[in-house]
Amino acid sequence: MSHSNPVRADGETESDGEGAAEAAVAAIGRGEPVLVHDAAEREGEVDLIYHAADVTPDAVARLRNDAGGLVCVALSHDVCEAFDLPFLADELDHPSATDEHLDYDERASFSLTVNHRDTYTGITDDDRSRTIRALADAAADPDSCDFAAEFRAPGHVHLLRGAPDGVADREGHTELGLALCEAAGRPPAAVVCEMLDADTGQALSPADARRYADDNGLVYVEGRDLLSFRR
Amino acid sequence: MSHSNPVRADGETESDGEGAAEAAVAAIGRGEPVLVHDAAEREGEVDLIYHAADVTPDAVARLRNDAGGLVCVALSHDVCEAFDLPFLADELDHPSATDEHLDYDERASFSLTVNHRDTYTGITDDDRSRTIRALADAAADPDSCDFAAEFRAPGHVHLLRGAPDGVADREGHTELGLALCEAAGRPPAAVVCEMLDADTGQALSPADARRYADDNGLVYVEGRDLLSFRR
Repeated sequence: MSHSNPVRADGETESDGEGAAEAAVAAIGRGEPVLVHDAAEREGEVDLIYHAADVTPDAVARLRNDAGGLVCVALSHDVCEAFDLPFLADELDHPSATDEHLDYDERASFSLTVNHRDTYTGITDDDRSRTIRALADAAADPDSCDFAAEFRAPGHVHLLRGAPDGVADREGHTELGLALCEAAGRPPAAVVCEMLDADTGQALSPADARRYADDNGLVYVEGRDLLSFRR
Repeated sequence: MSHSNPVRADGETESDGEGAAEAAVAAIGRGEPVLVHDAAEREGEVDLIYHAADVTPDAVARLRNDAGGLVCVALSHDVCEAFDLPFLADELDHPSATDEHLDYDERASFSLTVNHRDTYTGITDDDRSRTIRALADAAADPDSCDFAAEFRAPGHVHLLRGAPDGVADREGHTELGLALCEAAGRPPAAVVCEMLDADTGQALSPADARRYADDNGLVYVEGRDLLSFRR
């Protein structure tokens, strides 16, 4: 069941607001991926977002074939606190480890990279799916997960650390993905991956991402509409 | 000009030995990518390998579309020493940071992840190409590069740290890629990316990787043939 994503004549990114936000929450609730554009004045990127529990090996293949960015798992601040997962920038004792020149936000969300310990190399679709679904389980019940016994760092799945107050603190794909999980009543573990455009060498444009959504029966939503839906 | 990569009737991975190794070195010398299988008893993976200086935005698109693994830049031990680039596992003060359960080698090669400071988000084909080509320049002349002024960590390109004595120490794609650079008389900066198979969820098989090489006029070579060519 596809939510309609009409492309305007000027190809720009206006969405149908609350309707698209509701449809996106419902899709995440049903286990389907959605496309989320943060904001033109921010990264200006569209990410393909899944709930982590729904990332089968086929979904990993879709993320790398249709999106093409880094395959990342956003975990909420509380889950990161429970597992003592740091910001990677704070962990690195190297002079290059500074966010002072980021143009689009105060800091990146990068935490550790991990593999589930039962993976082999960690990079195959089967292996990344295993790591990602185990992270969903860990986020669902942090108290019953011994993180270091289950995951190895460094690995092939990037963890992202959500801001303490979520979208109230930061309006990145990390927090937008986690807001979708929360609104859908699911554990705070969202897979986010940037949609790239081979023809331009840039991020896939919002108009092209909306077309991809339509062609694949997926929901496209603007970050601002998710934010106002939550308010 | 394609080097011939006949697929045997049993689909297995025998190559034509020294001829394939010579052809791979020549291809890297000409600025073309090559396909390298490490060993069935190791990762059992085929990586698509470029010299870092040749990684245009189109090459990044090829890496993500045709290979699908992590886009990594292997730098030699000496270059890493010059820039004080650590093994990431040594840098992380988290209980998950241990390689003790790796099945295929003593340790992973992961060092920092970086973006060139002139990139925007760091993930687009243009941005990753910029980061990767600047790393090639840095490896060509470490003395004239202020690494921390030029690169920011964490970022979207994974650095890999070559073993001190290269393939004499470790026979991973990191060291095989660097051995190709050295044999071609080029600076020690190789981009390596795992070839994945969406149908199986596993690494692309050597037979399928060889077919891909033939279809695209590229050289396929077995790690063991590169090793004996260097001896």
